[in-house]
Amino acid sequence: MSTNQQIRLRRRPIGAPTPDDFSIVNSPMPVVQDGEVLRRTVYLSLDPYMRGRMNDARSYAAPVALGDVMVGGTVSEVIESRTPSFAKGDFVVGMDGWQQFAASAGTGLRKLDPRVAPISTALGVLGMPGLTAYVGLLDIGHAKSGETVVVSAASGAVGSIVGQIARLKGCRAVGIAGSPEKCDYIERELGFHAAVNHRAPDLRGALRAACPNGIDVYFENVGGAVLAAVLPLINRGARIPLCGQISQYNATEPAHAPNLAPLLINRALIQGFIVTDHADRFGAFMAECGAWVRSGELRYREDIAEGLENAPQAFMGLLEGKNFGKLLVRVSADPTRAGIAPSVR
Amino acid sequence: MSTNQQIRLRRRPIGAPTPDDFSIVNSPMPVVQDGEVLRRTVYLSLDPYMRGRMNDARSYAAPVALGDVMVGGTVSEVIESRTPSFAKGDFVVGMDGWQQFAASAGTGLRKLDPRVAPISTALGVLGMPGLTAYVGLLDIGHAKSGETVVVSAASGAVGSIVGQIARLKGCRAVGIAGSPEKCDYIERELGFHAAVNHRAPDLRGALRAACPNGIDVYFENVGGAVLAAVLPLINRGARIPLCGQISQYNATEPAHAPNLAPLLINRALIQGFIVTDHADRFGAFMAECGAWVRSGELRYREDIAEGLENAPQAFMGLLEGKNFGKLLVRVSADPTRAGIAPSVR
Repeated sequence: MSTNQQIRLRRRPIGAPTPDDFSIVNSPMPVVQDGEVLRRTVYLSLDPYMRGRMNDARSYAAPVALGDVMVGGTVSEVIESRTPSFAKGDFVVGMDGWQQFAASAGTGLRKLDPRVAPISTALGVLGMPGLTAYVGLLDIGHAKSGETVVVSAASGAVGSIVGQIARLKGCRAVGIAGSPEKCDYIERELGFHAAVNHRAPDLRGALRAACPNGIDVYFENVGGAVLAAVLPLINRGARIPLCGQISQYNATEPAHAPNLAPLLINRALIQGFIVTDHADRFGAFMAECGAWVRSGELRYREDIAEGLENAPQAFMGLLEGKNFGKLLVRVSADPTRAGIAPSVR
Repeated sequence: MSTNQQIRLRRRPIGAPTPDDFSIVNSPMPVVQDGEVLRRTVYLSLDPYMRGRMNDARSYAAPVALGDVMVGGTVSEVIESRTPSFAKGDFVVGMDGWQQFAASAGTGLRKLDPRVAPISTALGVLGMPGLTAYVGLLDIGHAKSGETVVVSAASGAVGSIVGQIARLKGCRAVGIAGSPEKCDYIERELGFHAAVNHRAPDLRGALRAACPNGIDVYFENVGGAVLAAVLPLINRGARIPLCGQISQYNATEPAHAPNLAPLLINRALIQGFIVTDHADRFGAFMAECGAWVRSGELRYREDIAEGLENAPQAFMGLLEGKNFGKLLVRVSADPTRAGIAPSVR
């Protein structure tokens, strides 16, 4: 415990990130000042948005500076506290980034009760990805019972929740995913009504078959060819919450979007949103989705890489769709899960 | 008066329409039944949407059948009435299409008072194009005082009204048009704050210079390269009412749209709309815009082709941006405008 292993941005990737874009640094342990809290990272969340932060481009958040610790959501255990707000042994969710330890006054940390839900869920189904799904589907997409909801990257952290909330709200839930195994999983384990492999030779035909009543909401996570297949199938008044475009994140040239005539003909909309604008919905989200998680109606899967040093490789895989479920890095042992084998629920 | 000249759809155009896609037919005069009203067309409106009706493709309205009279808005004079709802000499606006005479029970006809505004305005500034501008800018675009509104096809029937309503609502109004003369016109005659020629060598640079505070509302009439230049300049929370895509209407292959990342980064939306869904706003529109027209604060320009037989040529020019102002065909003499030279206000 004498050093703090960190993963820093060494250079800005051109196209897909490579291991050389990151550096692994052993920094000194943070020094805890009065009023501060020191914590050890248990889980680091890996999410597609991080690719954008590696670029030096205008976006909705500032880029990571060269040489800085990579940004990221974390679940941590408090190991020393010099503030009454936290006690040793508390579990907290925050944005400590790709490192083993962090110290601060604790602004932005939220305490977790491990008796309510596994602490890792604060980075997934009951955290930012879950809120993203909830807000995008309900507040941007205005999904209503009886409608058909299509979601891409459907076995991923956000997509898997979108489809299940859609089902729980009485919609027909159709997922688009990248392998037969992922398609099986969302249909059999998560209860989607249908699944379509985006590598199918006739994607549009497969989607049409899966959506006999057309598409009312398309929750867009990927961009590219999938959006092109979806647009001709949208219904009048369709809503397309634009959450991500993972197929584009490693692109060196901005890709075109498909022709927008279906939007006009169908009085439909595409609306971008960023989950951090919707923090006011966290309470409603936790009340509803927390109950569904506890009752088993809302399921999730975690794909856990072991050890901070493996975070770059896991992240590179995420951008290629190699993960299966919410991608986490176990940075240190999870004291709440002693004896539970990783990656299995 | 023994025949009814009509222009019918002879074949479906591939790409730009040609004269051979239309046929000019001398049909018998309509026979007026009891309960019906016979009228003579004075003005026929020519509008971009008509190109879509010439295709046999799914859209928001049924295509014109081969051999049928071309669809179109009209201002007409009642020349015989067998219903108490109308009297000889009444002026009415309706959808009589590309023909000299029409008879029907009068459903869908609205009487015009030529003392309130010139009857031709019922096809332009105080008709469908004006309502399109009003609804798109205010109900879809939610333009607010102090914001920057950009509109394409800005000297056209819709665009010219969009920019002026924006100005009257306290917005910065920036127009994109296709010639120095049109740019001059919208700046000097219509009071737009700035005008940009879409044929400028550096369209994005010119737009950036015209919009020092970015773009809050982009009223989209054209598609293609203009949208690509606009998107990188949109502000957070920008709204893009999608009204038309005239640059695409003659395309034989659907053109791509620009990359949509700016929508995501800026939590912005593109929303298609069709004016016929918003008939409930006609009263509010007429109250507000009618007053502005009477006070001279809302100006308009008409580009009038003489004679129904010239409608196809005028329509083909419309799709190439050759018109200057609201394009009309004077099918018969306007009794309310004796002595007023055409095309000049």
